[in-house]
Amino acid sequence: MKKHTYVEIVTIGDEILYGQITDTNSQWIGQELNKLGFKVIRKTSIGDTKEEILTILDEAQKRADIILITGGLGPTKDDITKKTIAEYFNVGMTFRQEVFDNIAELFKTRNRALTDLNRQQAEVPENGEVIMNPVGTAPGMWFEQGNKTFVSMPGVPYEMKRLMSDSILGKLQSKYDTPFIVHKMLRTMGIPESLLADQIEEWEDALPEFIGLAYLPRFGQVRLRLTAVGDNKEVLDNAIEAQVEKLRPLLGDNLFAEDDVEIEQMIMNKMIEKGVTLATAESCTGGAIAKRITTLSGCSAFYKGGIVSYSNEVKMTQLDVQGETLLEHGAVSEETALQMANNVREKYKTDYGIATTGIAGPGGGTKDKPVGTVWVALSTAEKTEAKLLQLTKTREVNIYATGNTILKWLYDEI
Amino acid sequence: MKKHTYVEIVTIGDEILYGQITDTNSQWIGQELNKLGFKVIRKTSIGDTKEEILTILDEAQKRADIILITGGLGPTKDDITKKTIAEYFNVGMTFRQEVFDNIAELFKTRNRALTDLNRQQAEVPENGEVIMNPVGTAPGMWFEQGNKTFVSMPGVPYEMKRLMSDSILGKLQSKYDTPFIVHKMLRTMGIPESLLADQIEEWEDALPEFIGLAYLPRFGQVRLRLTAVGDNKEVLDNAIEAQVEKLRPLLGDNLFAEDDVEIEQMIMNKMIEKGVTLATAESCTGGAIAKRITTLSGCSAFYKGGIVSYSNEVKMTQLDVQGETLLEHGAVSEETALQMANNVREKYKTDYGIATTGIAGPGGGTKDKPVGTVWVALSTAEKTEAKLLQLTKTREVNIYATGNTILKWLYDEI
Repeated sequence: MKKHTYVEIVTIGDEILYGQITDTNSQWIGQELNKLGFKVIRKTSIGDTKEEILTILDEAQKRADIILITGGLGPTKDDITKKTIAEYFNVGMTFRQEVFDNIAELFKTRNRALTDLNRQQAEVPENGEVIMNPVGTAPGMWFEQGNKTFVSMPGVPYEMKRLMSDSILGKLQSKYDTPFIVHKMLRTMGIPESLLADQIEEWEDALPEFIGLAYLPRFGQVRLRLTAVGDNKEVLDNAIEAQVEKLRPLLGDNLFAEDDVEIEQMIMNKMIEKGVTLATAESCTGGAIAKRITTLSGCSAFYKGGIVSYSNEVKMTQLDVQGETLLEHGAVSEETALQMANNVREKYKTDYGIATTGIAGPGGGTKDKPVGTVWVALSTAEKTEAKLLQLTKTREVNIYATGNTILKWLYDEI
Repeated sequence: MKKHTYVEIVTIGDEILYGQITDTNSQWIGQELNKLGFKVIRKTSIGDTKEEILTILDEAQKRADIILITGGLGPTKDDITKKTIAEYFNVGMTFRQEVFDNIAELFKTRNRALTDLNRQQAEVPENGEVIMNPVGTAPGMWFEQGNKTFVSMPGVPYEMKRLMSDSILGKLQSKYDTPFIVHKMLRTMGIPESLLADQIEEWEDALPEFIGLAYLPRFGQVRLRLTAVGDNKEVLDNAIEAQVEKLRPLLGDNLFAEDDVEIEQMIMNKMIEKGVTLATAESCTGGAIAKRITTLSGCSAFYKGGIVSYSNEVKMTQLDVQGETLLEHGAVSEETALQMANNVREKYKTDYGIATTGIAGPGGGTKDKPVGTVWVALSTAEKTEAKLLQLTKTREVNIYATGNTILKWLYDEI
């Protein structure tokens, strides 16, 4: 097999260590590199100090072939990555006219005046190759030292992504020849990790050496990841597929979805293909389902909209839930869920209506209806049905798991 | 000043390196430690391999006093953290009855049968002190070696948080005496980082040595973080406040909010205090604003709900937007936004109504209304007004920035 190309990702910024931002950059970079067969062996976050930056650059290049660095390229004094990289390579800085022109152009579009700080953003370590940034003022930089590559990118996620997609990934691919890494993801629901492991133990033990298995639990789902590594993609694909064929019957009804595509994306594909439409009525999920759907570009082709009915009054006036239903059975009840799903479908004139009502927590639980009690309902022209869920004590888990359950149910019904 | 207590956070799991999950654990841990004066100096993510785990434990204890480890404690074969830690300390494993009883109890609640794998979860390295996990099957573990502390926790976020909050943070506080770290966060909007830096340069240069300043740009906001470190909290608080008093007038209208509280939380506090209510009508934000609000526990005290009107039909039938308005001005127009905000307020009988309609992208732009064209509107009993925004080409930025703008506007009006 070809030699692995090892990558380390270094994210720089005190705000990461203080926990003031979520580092989503390293996740995205990991995903993209993985698709191309690069092996990320470590991710490190450090603060904006010269010593830390110098140390990690030196450590990382001992372990990895490629070191990808994000952050610390802003125009302000607290950002010191660029000059520290120059110090690491023991070179000076040079002014790059093309970078300055790009900054000037960006400021013109935004009707802003340039400052001296922006001029400094056009200075780059002498040995660096500039990677132009069409969406921001800080350029990317590419450095080579022996067979090692260092790339420095801005920390703003959409700028970093643009630089990676437009040029860096391509340049890395031309420079390094890597084996293929093929993943297959299967999502299960409704079975704990330990039971699942028992259920598929024999199959797991018989896996060939070059295929690895991982269990990834999350919000009531367990995802199974098969990973195969080798030089021939077709061989890997076939080997994985052969294993998945043996695995499917062992998972039975607990198999939720294949491949790591979000359920809302699967629904979108199926609904557009069938030319059907959807509306949502959300109480306890409070717009979280609508948000998941509308995060998808192109969703207006099947999603007409929805109602977030947080109060009983809104359930009555906007969703025509009967006052006596709320009095007799309460807002968190099968009857209310059924009316919500049916009525939103009728009001929005869609083929499918889905509804959620429950106690997300942490407050609001009673003895009869503790936190985590949730009703979900699904309505079509033919039928309207509801299901009771008993979830957890944790608000965010309940909101997410409720969404997963009703979306999975919807997907199966389309 | 007291000596800093240095902490390293190590998150274990191939899924982090492959980019298959977002590592939110290390962010949360960083936040909580920071509040208590612990200084996180590095975060590292590594794969589930024995060599990597042994190496990082050894490296980290050379740099830090405390090493916090999450992940790799599941019942399945791919999880090897526990036995690798035993190997690192050169000890064997012992069965802990109290851990097993806890697992058995959890399974009873969930009506599941125990397996051999669960029994193995009750085995712990001999030198480890067990930290009971009330919400999951994998126990936490506390190890001491000389003056260094190692803590191993499950990777499931709500389990880790429970263990940290219930016992680990308290135990660390009793063991280590740290200086105070005080932050103050100011959020600005509508001014680029470089201009802002120019505007406050003199003030920044005159900051005392023990106060640091950082610029954190994100989605059209720039957050300014002041950080002071020392032994006397009152002195730090006063010194920061004195600096902020000088800074406020320099920021003027660009000052958006103080302290790092989300704008929706600020709205909730103010609305509940004043006893007023809110409804939302969302087109281009597609429920993202409702979701931000309903993520807050207790929001039902002021938030009655909202409408996600993704199609023109829903805008007409559910929000009473006039057909001729849509024909004449289009869905993305001042007139449509005004009607949405006013009508949702009237329909939901609330004091405030807010609305968004725009082209989030990437598709749907025209020459007159390019991607990033957004109208937001705010309605009260006295008046209904709209504002035009010209945002970016990036869908997620547009959705988030639209929410920020209308929520900030709402906050100012309450």
